[in-house]
Order: sequence, then structure tokens, then C-alpha cells
Amino acid sequence: MKKIYLNPSDMPTQWYNILADLPQLAPPISPATGKPATPEEMLAIFPGPILEQEMSAQRHIDIPEEVLDILTIWRPSPVVRAERLEKALGTKCRIYYKYEGGSPAGSHKTNTAVPQAYYNKISGINKLTTETGAGQWGSALSYATSIFEMSLRVYMVKVSYFQKPYRKSFMNMFGAEVIPSPSNLTNAGRAELERDPQSHGSLGLAISEAVEEAASNSDTNYALGSVLNHVIIHQSLIGLEAKKQMEIGGDYPDMVFASCGGGSNFGGIAAPFVKDKMDGKKVECVAMEPISCPTLTKGEYTFDYGDVGKMTPIMQMYTLGHDFMPPAIHAGGLRYHGDSPIVSAMYKQGLIDARSIGQLDVFKYGTLFAKTEGIIPAPESSHAIAGAAKEALACDERGESKSLLFCLSGHGHFDMASYDAYYEGKLEDYSYPEEEIEKSLRSLPKVDLD
Amino acid sequence: MKKIYLNPSDMPTQWYNILADLPQLAPPISPATGKPATPEEMLAIFPGPILEQEMSAQRHIDIPEEVLDILTIWRPSPVVRAERLEKALGTKCRIYYKYEGGSPAGSHKTNTAVPQAYYNKISGINKLTTETGAGQWGSALSYATSIFEMSLRVYMVKVSYFQKPYRKSFMNMFGAEVIPSPSNLTNAGRAELERDPQSHGSLGLAISEAVEEAASNSDTNYALGSVLNHVIIHQSLIGLEAKKQMEIGGDYPDMVFASCGGGSNFGGIAAPFVKDKMDGKKVECVAMEPISCPTLTKGEYTFDYGDVGKMTPIMQMYTLGHDFMPPAIHAGGLRYHGDSPIVSAMYKQGLIDARSIGQLDVFKYGTLFAKTEGIIPAPESSHAIAGAAKEALACDERGESKSLLFCLSGHGHFDMASYDAYYEGKLEDYSYPEEEIEKSLRSLPKVDLD
Repeated sequence: MKKIYLNPSDMPTQWYNILADLPQLAPPISPATGKPATPEEMLAIFPGPILEQEMSAQRHIDIPEEVLDILTIWRPSPVVRAERLEKALGTKCRIYYKYEGGSPAGSHKTNTAVPQAYYNKISGINKLTTETGAGQWGSALSYATSIFEMSLRVYMVKVSYFQKPYRKSFMNMFGAEVIPSPSNLTNAGRAELERDPQSHGSLGLAISEAVEEAASNSDTNYALGSVLNHVIIHQSLIGLEAKKQMEIGGDYPDMVFASCGGGSNFGGIAAPFVKDKMDGKKVECVAMEPISCPTLTKGEYTFDYGDVGKMTPIMQMYTLGHDFMPPAIHAGGLRYHGDSPIVSAMYKQGLIDARSIGQLDVFKYGTLFAKTEGIIPAPESSHAIAGAAKEALACDERGESKSLLFCLSGHGHFDMASYDAYYEGKLEDYSYPEEEIEKSLRSLPKVDLD
Repeated sequence: MKKIYLNPSDMPTQWYNILADLPQLAPPISPATGKPATPEEMLAIFPGPILEQEMSAQRHIDIPEEVLDILTIWRPSPVVRAERLEKALGTKCRIYYKYEGGSPAGSHKTNTAVPQAYYNKISGINKLTTETGAGQWGSALSYATSIFEMSLRVYMVKVSYFQKPYRKSFMNMFGAEVIPSPSNLTNAGRAELERDPQSHGSLGLAISEAVEEAASNSDTNYALGSVLNHVIIHQSLIGLEAKKQMEIGGDYPDMVFASCGGGSNFGGIAAPFVKDKMDGKKVECVAMEPISCPTLTKGEYTFDYGDVGKMTPIMQMYTLGHDFMPPAIHAGGLRYHGDSPIVSAMYKQGLIDARSIGQLDVFKYGTLFAKTEGIIPAPESSHAIAGAAKEALACDERGESKSLLFCLSGHGHFDMASYDAYYEGKLEDYSYPEEEIEKSLRSLPKVDLD
């Protein structure tokens, strides 16, 4: 069976919350006090129902009817047997991919944008702020706020704002206001512009700007597209559907691959399989990250800020240090210094594996996938393709035949410039930036958990 | 039922050839002699199996196994009930769309690119030439030639070459060579460059260049993405699938809408429904064309060249005259002076209807569709959306409730610049260019059918 569809009526109606099955995570810490953040501090930027999910120990959480209704515009997403890729690799492994690129914004990000907009709306909030790097998350949230007739301001990392004008067009089309960051609308932005008037911006700084605006306006909340627990919970749909589909296809994956930046795409597909693993099933989930930003494979498990401006709660996670500025690789969605506390805990517990990969391999296998399977992948997603493809070849060398599943988290229709750069030979493999990371890890915050 | 899928195993295994059910069409006429083209003349640029289909009177034609195998990478395509669009319009009509944008190149063009590449390959041809305007057809054929390991040279209208660099990147990625037209590689290109060294090019001229190269090299054939009979036959899959899907959904369309440039998308979805109409069923198929290039609604049914350079066979069709140069509207795929002989004959026979529409309405309903259904449509496809939406509103005024089906022939991910232009108020409604058409219709070729 080449493509495995689920009917909308067979779509899961509950999210899976892996917090119920993990040892309790450390609470988010207030950057102001160094002590666990109070509900009041969190409610300044998040609505009640989102905070509740963030702390929930409930294993299964009902998806509201209104959210399901919108998700079924593009869900369930297909699982596809990558027969032509297998043939091109000459592998005896079975390779499947779960394709999230059919969503309105072209990636898995819409899965959490819709419930986040919904929970804010029913909590009386009509205005959201957020940040975006490559533009995927800003696009997804602009679609969701458009559906619920809310207003949205997106702080877009300045270098992307000018390099990816069509992502800006996308957000404008769905009614969002897009501001290049650093901007002079916030203290964080003004400080950076004072330091360097030509600053290109960074994801961490754009987060600071968006959080600052939400925290200082009572009618405005903030939404984040990755990292936080509720985001991983919303993305669990990917793994829940994939499990059903693999069962329909009469197979079960020995290994599951997904790219990992903040962790929402990886956590989303992995969590339901990690639950299987805890229940004794044999399955290995592998987070694929860029060599140039190797948070899990080379970072430290500790407490750190989520942003450069130290505005966000401090979280226990794998981090390269909040000051870490990765080289400008094209997979903008994976250039984050930290990692989701849930994904970090799973890694710390030995429940998942992580591997890093250079961008030449990423583009090599990404273009092979395009030519064989007919979908141009986002460079972020190509990390997962490359992970699965290299594993397949390694299996062949060892004389093994495995079932490999990966998440194709988005299409690359807005990333053609990076393919041009690849074909023009302009991309190089950055080596692991050891000194940068060591330096950055020296400025971790102090935390008082008692 | 919101989305109606067909399993790949339920995909039609034969194309429908409406030539079997229409009065015999006039043969293609040689531009050299003014008499019916000889097989030798046609075989200079097309392979035998394609020519056979071009002239076939066989009602159902088997789809080769190798072609089916590739088509099922993205087919069958879904039929979707546009519930949110209906709600936004406040209509009592039921609106469905058949979505062709999930294909590798993002439009219906891939449906014919694959069999055309295949038939050339099995005829011993390893090199193709073609032209592309907006880039959809060039992208589709580059995908298909990549699959069959053939080489491809695409003459891309110069103004698009520079305005749509990512379409060029797409074709390069799949191994095609992209040449801005006019080029100095052909006599037709050199003549135009002599006339105007700054020439922006046109689709008609790019066709001349591609045909000239194929005609003067025995190892090279030419492939066309629309107009010709075999293309309409290949695209009949759209209508055949849609009929099955509407039946599964328990409905049958009162009206079917599709945009119409050369006619492949319209002819593809319409032909199987026109057959129903000939068999006594009540269904109305409407070809939607731009006011600025109103081939069916304002053209003449006569014999004309398919290109500016008078290289192609002369065909009996609706035409605005091969010299007609439409204003630069953004739906580049609809800027063609002629129309498919099959579609022209259906219109002449009263089997279909045609309407023209201005681009402000096209973008108005296109953006409404994006916001409600979550897919950014290609501007070409938005002609169909607008046709169906305006019909729905007209039905409501008349107190009728109809079932309306349209073909969403492609996504607009590579057309964001035209959405920017719309939101910036830079688009205008061109009026019907009456004098231009009158002038252009004065230079029709002489034809001798005896």
C-alpha cells in the first residue's frame, strides 16, 4: 500500500499528553525572581486553558469540537510508503513518511496554531503577538488568527524579512502585521538597535520583543510555536495518526526520525511511540539536528532562558546557552539554542536518541527525495529524510532490513533560494562550533528551586 | 462528507477520449503547404504513440502501467466540499472543488507531462524541448523527464524568467535547462531580438523557439502542455475521478467550472461531464477566461496558427489571432490567443458555456478561498473559484440551490508577488481589448482542406 489515508472521522479526538508518563518536570522559573513562576506571571502572556495544559498530568485531553472542525480541513495527513526513494537508495528497508506539508501554512505548525488561537479567543483575548524566523510559524498563526478573527503582530527576524519576502506576503494575506525585528517598538528591540543599528536580528531577540509587547498590554497574549509542553501535546496528533496508519499498512516502525529545533515536530511524532517504548515495545525515536546547532548532542541539561533578552521563563532543558548564535544555515527553523523540556527529559531519560547532520547531506538527500517522491521538502524536514536514508544504507551494510518512519514536516516551496545556493555550490558544512558553545554556556541563569 | 478520497486502486485505468463522441474535427494543417499536415511532418516533433492518440477515435484508452505507477504518487486527487467558503458566501448552494495542486509541480500539468515523457522515451527519444510562460508546464515536464532520465530544454518567456526566479530554480532542480526566450539559439528568437533587442518575449514566440529546435534535430521532440487532443485526453482523469467522487458523496454537479487558457484543465474536468450531457444528463460546464484574453467569448471560430512564428500546425479553433498580445495580467497560464480544438468544438456545438471575468474579481474570490479553505490558489485557478462563487450568489438571488463543482487546478505558492500587487492596489481590471483583437484577426492563414 503506497499511501495510507485515514478518514476525517477516524481522526483522533484527544491529544496525548506524555507529561502523564514522564517523571515530573521542573517548573518554569521566573526570570525576575529565579524562583518558580507564579500563575499570575504566566497569565500575563498565556490564557488559562493553555496554562492548564502546560501543567496538566492528564494523559488524554479532549480536542475541542471547534478545533477539530478546522484541523480536518487538512487532517488526517497521509502516511506514504517511499517506494521510489527506497529504490533509488537500493535499500532493503521499508521507508515511510508522514506528510504534514498539506496544511494551509505548509507545515505541521498549523496543528498547534489553531488550538492556541482558539483558547485565547474563548478567554477573551483578541490580539496575539509572536515571532517567526523562517516564517513557518508566523504563517501558521496568521492563518489561525484569521479563522478566529483576531489580530496578530509577528516580529520577523530581520534577515528573513528581507530574504523571504513571500513568507511576509503570506502573513499579510491572512491579515497579520509583520514587523522586522529588531524594531523600535520594544525596549528589547531598541537596545539591540542601539548596540548595532545594522543588526540582522535573531529568533531569541524576536521572542523577547513579542513577549515584551504581550506582557505590557493586558489585552494582548503571546503564542509560541514550539518548545512548550502544550505545543508538544497539540502536535501529538502526528504520532497518533501515524500509529493508526502504520497499523492499517500492516507494519510498525523500528525507528522514527524527525528534525528537531525547538522540538515540536519531533516531540509530536515521537511521543506516542515513546509511550509504546515505555510499555515495552521495541521502537527507537531519533531527533535529527544540524551539526551547527547541536542542542541535544552537544548541549548541557540545565536551566536556561528561552530567549536572548531573558524575558521568558527559565526552563530545564538541553541548551547551548541563550547567547549562542548559530551560523546562518538555511534551515532557519532549527536555529534555536534550547530544546523543548519534554524532548529534553525524554533524551535525559534515554527514551529517545539524537543525531546531528551537516547541511550538504541534508540537501543531498532532500533533493533525492524531491526527484523520487515528487515533493520538494523544507530544508528543516530534509534533516529527517537524511536521517532515515542514512540509517537505511547503514542497515543494508549490516545486512538488516528495518521499517523506518520519518516526519516530512513541511514543503519547501518558499525555500527555493536555499536550493539555488546548494546547486550553485554555495553551501558548506559548518563544523561543530565548540568554542562558541563553551563561551555561551558560561552565562546560565541562577535558579532557586526551594 | 467534507473530503472525498478515492483509493489509488480505484483510480481510472483508462483515459476518456471525447473525440469518439464529437463530430470529426478538422485535421491539423501544415503551415508550409496550407494542406492537411502529413504524418512525416508531425513525426518530426511528436512520437508515434502521441500522434496516434491525437487522431484516435477510440473512446477509452488504456493508461500504461508505468504511467499509472507514477500518477498514483499524487493521484487520485481529492474532491472537497468547500463548506467554509459556502458559509462565508452565505449561499445555499453546495460547492465542491477538485484539487490538483498536490502534484509534484503543484498543478494539473503533471497529469499529461508524465505520459508525454513516457511515450517519447519508449519511442527512443531522450531529449525534449518545450516552452513555459508562468512556469507551471515547464516544472511539470522537468519532473516527468527527470523520472524517465531524459534531458529537457525549456524556453521560458523572458519576462517570467526574471519575475519568477523560483520557477526556474524548480526546473533546474529537476535537471532541466532553462533558456530565457527570445534567445539567440533559434531563427525565431534571433529575428525577434533583431526587431527588439529588449523584447520581453511571449508564449507564442517561446513555442516557436521550442518547435524550431525539435523540428531541426532528429533526436529531439517537442512537448506541449495544453491545446492538443492528446493533452485533453490525458487530463480526462480529472473529470473521471471527480464523477466517481461526487457519486461517493451522493451528489451530482449542476454546473462544472474551470479556468480556460489553452483548455487542458477545463477540457480535462469537463469532457466526462459533457459525455453525460450528450447522454441526456443535465449538467452545464463553464469555461472561465480572463476579460483581457477572451478567446471563447469574443474570438472567432476559424483556422489559425498555434504560435507567433507560424511554426506549429494550423488548427480549427476559437482564436483572437496569433498576433494577439494580451495585457500583462498575472494569470500567465491564461494568456493564449487560441483554444484547444476539442474545447472549441464543444463550445461551437453548444455543449459547454463560457464566461469571462476581470482580475479584481479573480483575486477577491481567490483570497476569500484562501482564508476559508486554507489553500492559496494559483491566479489561473481563481478564475474557476470566482466563477463558482458568483454563480452561487446569483443562484441565491434567484432562490435556487445548485450543486457546483470547480477545478482548483493549482496552488499559488509561486505566485505570491501577484497577491502582493493585489493587496497594494496595483492591479486593475483591463477592459476587453476590442481593437487589438480586430486587428489581430486580420492576419489569419489561408487553408486548403480539399
